[in-house]
Amino acid sequence: MDLDDLKHLLTALQVGDLSIDEGLERLRKLPFEDAGIAMIDHHRALRQGVPEVVFGEGKSTEQICTIVQRMVVHGDNILITRISGEKAHALSNIYPNGKYDPVANTYCLQQKPEKDLGRGKILIICAGTSDLPVAKEAAVTARMFNNQVEELVDVGVAGIHRLLAHTDILREASVIIVVAGMEGALPSVVGGLVDVPVIAVPTSIGYGAAFGGVAALLGMLNSCAGGVTVVNIDNGFGAAFAATRINRKKSS
Amino acid sequence: MDLDDLKHLLTALQVGDLSIDEGLERLRKLPFEDAGIAMIDHHRALRQGVPEVVFGEGKSTEQICTIVQRMVVHGDNILITRISGEKAHALSNIYPNGKYDPVANTYCLQQKPEKDLGRGKILIICAGTSDLPVAKEAAVTARMFNNQVEELVDVGVAGIHRLLAHTDILREASVIIVVAGMEGALPSVVGGLVDVPVIAVPTSIGYGAAFGGVAALLGMLNSCAGGVTVVNIDNGFGAAFAATRINRKKSS
Amino acid sequence: MDLDDLKHLLTALQVGDLSIDEGLERLRKLPFEDAGIAMIDHHRALRQGVPEVVFGEGKSTEQICTIVQRMVVHGDNILITRISGEKAHALSNIYPNGKYDPVANTYCLQQKPEKDLGRGKILIICAGTSDLPVAKEAAVTARMFNNQVEELVDVGVAGIHRLLAHTDILREASVIIVVAGMEGALPSVVGGLVDVPVIAVPTSIGYGAAFGGVAALLGMLNSCAGGVTVVNIDNGFGAAFAATRINRKKSS
Amino acid sequence: MDLDDLKHLLTALQVGDLSIDEGLERLRKLPFEDAGIAMIDHHRALRQGVPEVVFGEGKSTEQICTIVQRMVVHGDNILITRISGEKAHALSNIYPNGKYDPVANTYCLQQKPEKDLGRGKILIICAGTSDLPVAKEAAVTARMFNNQVEELVDVGVAGIHRLLAHTDILREASVIIVVAGMEGALPSVVGGLVDVPVIAVPTSIGYGAAFGGVAALLGMLNSCAGGVTVVNIDNGFGAAFAATRINRKKSS
Amino acid sequence: MDLDDLKHLLTALQVGDLSIDEGLERLRKLPFEDAGIAMIDHHRALRQGVPEVVFGEGKSTEQICTIVQRMVVHGDNILITRISGEKAHALSNIYPNGKYDPVANTYCLQQKPEKDLGRGKILIICAGTSDLPVAKEAAVTARMFNNQVEELVDVGVAGIHRLLAHTDILREASVIIVVAGMEGALPSVVGGLVDVPVIAVPTSIGYGAAFGGVAALLGMLNSCAGGVTVVNIDNGFGAAFAATRINRKKSS
Amino acid sequence: MDLDDLKHLLTALQVGDLSIDEGLERLRKLPFEDAGIAMIDHHRALRQGVPEVVFGEGKSTEQICTIVQRMVVHGDNILITRISGEKAHALSNIYPNGKYDPVANTYCLQQKPEKDLGRGKILIICAGTSDLPVAKEAAVTARMFNNQVEELVDVGVAGIHRLLAHTDILREASVIIVVAGMEGALPSVVGGLVDVPVIAVPTSIGYGAAFGGVAALLGMLNSCAGGVTVVNIDNGFGAAFAATRINRKKSS
Amino acid sequence: MDLDDLKHLLTALQVGDLSIDEGLERLRKLPFEDAGIAMIDHHRALRQGVPEVVFGEGKSTEQICTIVQRMVVHGDNILITRISGEKAHALSNIYPNGKYDPVANTYCLQQKPEKDLGRGKILIICAGTSDLPVAKEAAVTARMFNNQVEELVDVGVAGIHRLLAHTDILREASVIIVVAGMEGALPSVVGGLVDVPVIAVPTSIGYGAAFGGVAALLGMLNSCAGGVTVVNIDNGFGAAFAATRINRKKSS
Amino acid sequence: MDLDDLKHLLTALQVGDLSIDEGLERLRKLPFEDAGIAMIDHHRALRQGVPEVVFGEGKSTEQICTIVQRMVVHGDNILITRISGEKAHALSNIYPNGKYDPVANTYCLQQKPEKDLGRGKILIICAGTSDLPVAKEAAVTARMFNNQVEELVDVGVAGIHRLLAHTDILREASVIIVVAGMEGALPSVVGGLVDVPVIAVPTSIGYGAAFGGVAALLGMLNSCAGGVTVVNIDNGFGAAFAATRINRKKSS
Repeated sequence: MDLDDLKHLLTALQVGDLSIDEGLERLRKLPFEDAGIAMIDHHRALRQGVPEVVFGEGKSTEQICTIVQRMVVHGDNILITRISGEKAHALSNIYPNGKYDPVANTYCLQQKPEKDLGRGKILIICAGTSDLPVAKEAAVTARMFNNQVEELVDVGVAGIHRLLAHTDILREASVIIVVAGMEGALPSVVGGLVDVPVIAVPTSIGYGAAFGGVAALLGMLNSCAGGVTVVNIDNGFGAAFAATRINRKKSS
Repeated sequence: MDLDDLKHLLTALQVGDLSIDEGLERLRKLPFEDAGIAMIDHHRALRQGVPEVVFGEGKSTEQICTIVQRMVVHGDNILITRISGEKAHALSNIYPNGKYDPVANTYCLQQKPEKDLGRGKILIICAGTSDLPVAKEAAVTARMFNNQVEELVDVGVAGIHRLLAHTDILREASVIIVVAGMEGALPSVVGGLVDVPVIAVPTSIGYGAAFGGVAALLGMLNSCAGGVTVVNIDNGFGAAFAATRINRKKSS
Repeated sequence: MDLDDLKHLLTALQVGDLSIDEGLERLRKLPFEDAGIAMIDHHRALRQGVPEVVFGEGKSTEQICTIVQRMVVHGDNILITRISGEKAHALSNIYPNGKYDPVANTYCLQQKPEKDLGRGKILIICAGTSDLPVAKEAAVTARMFNNQVEELVDVGVAGIHRLLAHTDILREASVIIVVAGMEGALPSVVGGLVDVPVIAVPTSIGYGAAFGGVAALLGMLNSCAGGVTVVNIDNGFGAAFAATRINRKKSS
Repeated sequence: MDLDDLKHLLTALQVGDLSIDEGLERLRKLPFEDAGIAMIDHHRALRQGVPEVVFGEGKSTEQICTIVQRMVVHGDNILITRISGEKAHALSNIYPNGKYDPVANTYCLQQKPEKDLGRGKILIICAGTSDLPVAKEAAVTARMFNNQVEELVDVGVAGIHRLLAHTDILREASVIIVVAGMEGALPSVVGGLVDVPVIAVPTSIGYGAAFGGVAALLGMLNSCAGGVTVVNIDNGFGAAFAATRINRKKSS
Repeated sequence: MDLDDLKHLLTALQVGDLSIDEGLERLRKLPFEDAGIAMIDHHRALRQGVPEVVFGEGKSTEQICTIVQRMVVHGDNILITRISGEKAHALSNIYPNGKYDPVANTYCLQQKPEKDLGRGKILIICAGTSDLPVAKEAAVTARMFNNQVEELVDVGVAGIHRLLAHTDILREASVIIVVAGMEGALPSVVGGLVDVPVIAVPTSIGYGAAFGGVAALLGMLNSCAGGVTVVNIDNGFGAAFAATRINRKKSS
Repeated sequence: MDLDDLKHLLTALQVGDLSIDEGLERLRKLPFEDAGIAMIDHHRALRQGVPEVVFGEGKSTEQICTIVQRMVVHGDNILITRISGEKAHALSNIYPNGKYDPVANTYCLQQKPEKDLGRGKILIICAGTSDLPVAKEAAVTARMFNNQVEELVDVGVAGIHRLLAHTDILREASVIIVVAGMEGALPSVVGGLVDVPVIAVPTSIGYGAAFGGVAALLGMLNSCAGGVTVVNIDNGFGAAFAATRINRKKSS
Repeated sequence: MDLDDLKHLLTALQVGDLSIDEGLERLRKLPFEDAGIAMIDHHRALRQGVPEVVFGEGKSTEQICTIVQRMVVHGDNILITRISGEKAHALSNIYPNGKYDPVANTYCLQQKPEKDLGRGKILIICAGTSDLPVAKEAAVTARMFNNQVEELVDVGVAGIHRLLAHTDILREASVIIVVAGMEGALPSVVGGLVDVPVIAVPTSIGYGAAFGGVAALLGMLNSCAGGVTVVNIDNGFGAAFAATRINRKKSS
Repeated sequence: MDLDDLKHLLTALQVGDLSIDEGLERLRKLPFEDAGIAMIDHHRALRQGVPEVVFGEGKSTEQICTIVQRMVVHGDNILITRISGEKAHALSNIYPNGKYDPVANTYCLQQKPEKDLGRGKILIICAGTSDLPVAKEAAVTARMFNNQVEELVDVGVAGIHRLLAHTDILREASVIIVVAGMEGALPSVVGGLVDVPVIAVPTSIGYGAAFGGVAALLGMLNSCAGGVTVVNIDNGFGAAFAATRINRKKSS
């Protein structure tokens, strides 16, 4: 039920096509259908500059193709994350203009032109080359969400001068996503150098007592620098989504 | 806004006191107010035979008194859990007919007569005497929620004959709450002896590798017996609440 | 030793075929054989409307076939859980009227007609499509245990309106099983909307700090809503078993 | 060494008061001193609308007084977090115009007038009354950091209609801080209702398997809603700091 | 119901005072009462050389006194573990011949003469002086359980020669209890030097990553030496109980 | 250096072939070589009735064959644990009289006749059929260590009557090994029924919150029954080794 | 038995006061007594420049005084760690020239003059002022172990320029101890700036997901910088002990 | 920018080719570029006797070949760790004089002659044969870093005499790396026998409650012996790197 439906209901009441009791009954169930209205409004607002997203992991090639086929007719951009090369290949046969990124494990189908809906740039910093898949997932996502994106790779804290050599880039960003595994110390250093929001993404990179990203996650949650918030391990997509919300120009 | 308010709104529409646009505007915000209606219905239904409950832990004597004073005017029964003797004493000065249970750490103010709204009895079984505070919290709660309650104490698995000597009581229950610390094995044994629902409550009783109830909690979640579900550590109140829902006669 | 054996023993005593000392000796060992009697009673009661169940995981096709062959002669319904397509295929060659559910990973051999032994419906709610295998295991199990079952899929808390649109269904249920992974928040919301028992099943769905279902498990154990109890991670079968006990009409 | 010092050095070089080798030697150490310059710039920028902050926990009354005395002379606003009533009382004797908040455990010394340096309002939502100290710490901090702040209390997911009744307030915010203990489910629901950044703060509220906030932390990290980032357990200050960075108008 | 009761029942049957149906009915419930009989037999056997034991922790002085008063009339020896000096003092006023051990935190009331019911000596080895309370609890318990006990203190692995200097004592023991905190390495070394059973007791001694005895517990469970079994953290009583069972001469 | 070498040294001293200083120097290094002597004694004692043992996991077929070839010449019995069928097959080609147990994953080469060196029987109890591999590893090991062994399978606590039906067997044992996964409750029940030592072996059987045997391990460490000690998860070999030490007749 | 005793034994043998068999018997037990000799040598070597150390925590004032009185007669320096002000005060009454450090919680009794036995300086770096007690414990210990010590305080990674401003000091050190809590990132940065050994000490400073030092510990174990090793949480003493071994000039 | 560049800048200033403002601007960015200078110095110093290192895990054969080709032109020695046989084989086709170690999983390309840059020997001790891969990684690394290395294998604590028989070797070392899995007790014993630095490396060897090296890690962190520091699980490379720093002769 949308606003039009609601208008019809009220008109029917006013003109007597509907008794008060009947109206009452229909409105009694309304909240949740109305909630639907609210959501649609919200979704519409939200969707300005946001692609349709499919989480590819654990879905078969068939399932993904079916979903994409349903989405593609609306003309929106489509982003598939956590997709293997093999499945991406199958999609490419159907949608040859889609682009697969073998590092980010993403497949993008751009049906609308790229826009820049952000207040500034999203900078994605990556501690080591092993963290690249997560950083690239964030980068691809942020671009598909219509942000300008800059990337800085392999600037881990064990060679702090590599990071310090790029402070200009750090200061130009509007939001910074910092991707790091092992001890996860980079967001603390970055958070101390800038005054924009820093989103930390722990990665599962590391061995032994890295515990699949737990060490990095704890390090980031305990960051002694201000302005650092954290997302789930390896969640490059989630970081880019949050960064988009931060970077987005007020729609009004 | 309740059903009456809604009726007035519709009537105002019908008689022309409200334009369709005004009605639309008010109804647009309705979902969540209507949700309120739904909730009130629900709450009313729920509250048949349910006391007002105050979680006493971390609240000052003053705060508890203020809350109780607001509640008492509605004439409902009032249950305060996790309340210390000192605070209960303060309450008793104001409400001398309230009853404090120093083992269960509860304070009950009975303003309406006890009823039996259940299909049968709730049986509360307790592995050791140290688990008594949790078992008693469950017992007091279940009684205040208008159930018939039976208790069986100190029938832990290390002396399995103590439990086996009471199978008649086990079989008569409509729901069984099993409270146990340490290895938390009792619900498995009970679950194998009966065919009614068993709610397991791990307690923080034990030392060393009991880890404050984690050993018992894991034991219960891994119960090899069917029909066992689990609540949080030491959560006697929660177990009694769930048992009440299971035991309650269909209101219809 | 069953009741008949016991009768013979007592008769032998009464007619003098057995001395008191001989009787004493045989009865001294009785408890555990008698326990057997008690159990049989119990099992018979329990089995009214309960299929034979085989946990298929870790069993070879041969082992499963052997077990099923032994069971099938009793004419009971048979439910095999956690069975792969390959093994199910082998079974289908022998029992062509069995049904394999590739999502639930179950195989059902229905030898007796379906019955409805419940007080009401068991509703199974599922937060996301990835949680479907666990929800379906619960659904298949609950049906084989002779309950009426309704299912509600993909109503996770991040789009709360999807759930709110179905409150009628929620209120009609006699027990609700809520299956959710990731943050496991759905049971809290459901528990706040209804006044029937809610059984929460955490799933291992999620990545990073989901820790194979631990995040969802902890979320559910700490549910701020009343009446929620929890079973082991991915334990759809266990939830359905517990729900059956709750839903079953008193045999009396 | 600041920009003036650097200017003097270069002038001395240019006019020959310093040899190239002497200059080289002094500049060789410069990086880190220069880093100092950079930091000062940064700090100055940062400090626009930022108070001096003292973390009061584990510091004696004497230590706090000494630090405040050194700070007060610069005329900045001063915020002390995690300070007990007793210590705050001692401070009030010296600075009678300071304000102690006994719920937030903060002490504020406002020497400069409040400003609004934000793009919009920071909304702080609190699941239960027990989470109030953390929410209030966030609120006091955000105000001292020159943001407009709105608060919404006791809207936990177990009574979802309480939250839904306030969607207007949710939609007006520029950033939302969601404070919740126990299962930490509220940020997921909020994140699904709005399209602004959501910062989740797990609290140590809860018992048993809440594990001092771990359950809420994991729940929030695994949020199925987009745009949610997380800070450390009970870290109301950190959430407000991050929210300030998100809300701040570009200084340029 | 004990053997005498059972004899009466059978006699009543034989002489016709009880019908077969009546007997059947009474015997039907017998298993669990008979289980009682079996247990009594068992308990009697077990109790040869075993004191009555009270776990003092969490019990008030009053409760302990009440329990002891009930026990003392049977003339058995009484052992109270985990009892504070204050409570022990109260007991000493009533039972002046009882002995309190302030290191072991035990109180012993010896009403029967000491016996030696073991096959050999129980040796209790203690890694450091901080582990003494646990070692002493084991020693006092083992003596009250009528074993010969020898003690070896402060022979931790960091000064391995201290242990090696006592190999004769090691080889004379019939069972060895090894009490150690921190890294818990001592049982591995001892297990490699002897061929008798070794019971390892982790203690909560240590700091930081000792995690209250978890490090020692894991070390002991992973012992690379054969014949080592483990009890709970700080469980000197449990170790002595198990050692008693190992050391006990076959009663037959 | 053995006793003969030591004798020669002393004789050389006595007859003047060695100066006191030279003797001093050689004896100064003696401790550790002498320690060797002591160990040999010990090892000899230990080896009476003990096979050579090879831990097969992580060793290639070649490595195992090489080790066995070196061992076989001493004529001792040889036990290989954790060996796959494929590797066992390779061994069988060389030693056709060796026996592979595909459940226990062991390979036994019996070169000396079986003996019974124990004081009584070792009873191995197994909670469920899935725990069989661990129980069988214990059984094979205990037999190869020259003990009499009895086995009791599938007597888990959820059907307690199955265990109670075998109390005679329980009481005849000299040591009992209890193998259980999931909630690991069986040792508590067994420990309460007997008065002989009970060695608990947690297995990694179970799913979800069983955490690969951690739930069972914690359950067993927290056993409320006396006389229960614990070995590592799935460590059937270690349990049998410890049981052998307990069961062994004093060699003297 | 020391070297003199051994000499007497050999002489007795040579002059015939002892038979070879008697000598053999006494020497047979020698290993472990001899081990004692070896240890004494070792200990003597070790003790060059090493004080007697008492771990004060958990020891009563009386116990500490007794131990110190026994030690003081040997004229060695004495270091007591983890000692409270109250206990230190009691010691000062007896040994007025002892020095208590209320931050390090140490008490030093210097009976021998300070020496410098190191190859260079031990530098102790401290991330925040809250980490000072641990850093000071390390500093006091290192000085008592006769090393030159330098300290650098409050140079955490969130303000990286503070550290970079002191690279000269970093490069002059022979070993560096880095003390840090929260995310424990400082050792990684330091390890990347220098080429000397870095010993990382995690502290229990932090809250929430710092888990009493676990976050810092994991961060340090996963340090991406080379040459970093780690000691236990808060173990300033252990770090200084290890640093002493690294810094010590070869005694030869 | 290096020192020469800096000299040119200053000269340009002095001769007037650069205005003070231009110089100021360039110097403002200098810190981080200058930091670069410092790093180069540092790196040069560091690299004396240090090979180029490639972490092979997770890199494709192609990637490794590309990296090695870039490195090989500088004429440095090259060490690849965690490389599989297959990848090493591919490298050998290009660089036939490289050496693959199938136990250590390393590939070494020695372009410069071996040197001995250490103060003494690095001794690598290994508890069991299963720990060999980690010990060998440490040995190969230490040799490539130009140290003299000695190895001692299979001297675990369960047969302590095996270690004691080699005390001479222990005492000759300048640093000792101790590699151990399971309970990780060996470093404590070694640390008590020597007075040189001991670096403990936990390995993931063990099963059940070894938790992939956590038991060994905790054991080592809690070592009761002085002078023991710890690296990450299985981190043989890191231990050798730290040992090299300790062993290296002062370059001055």
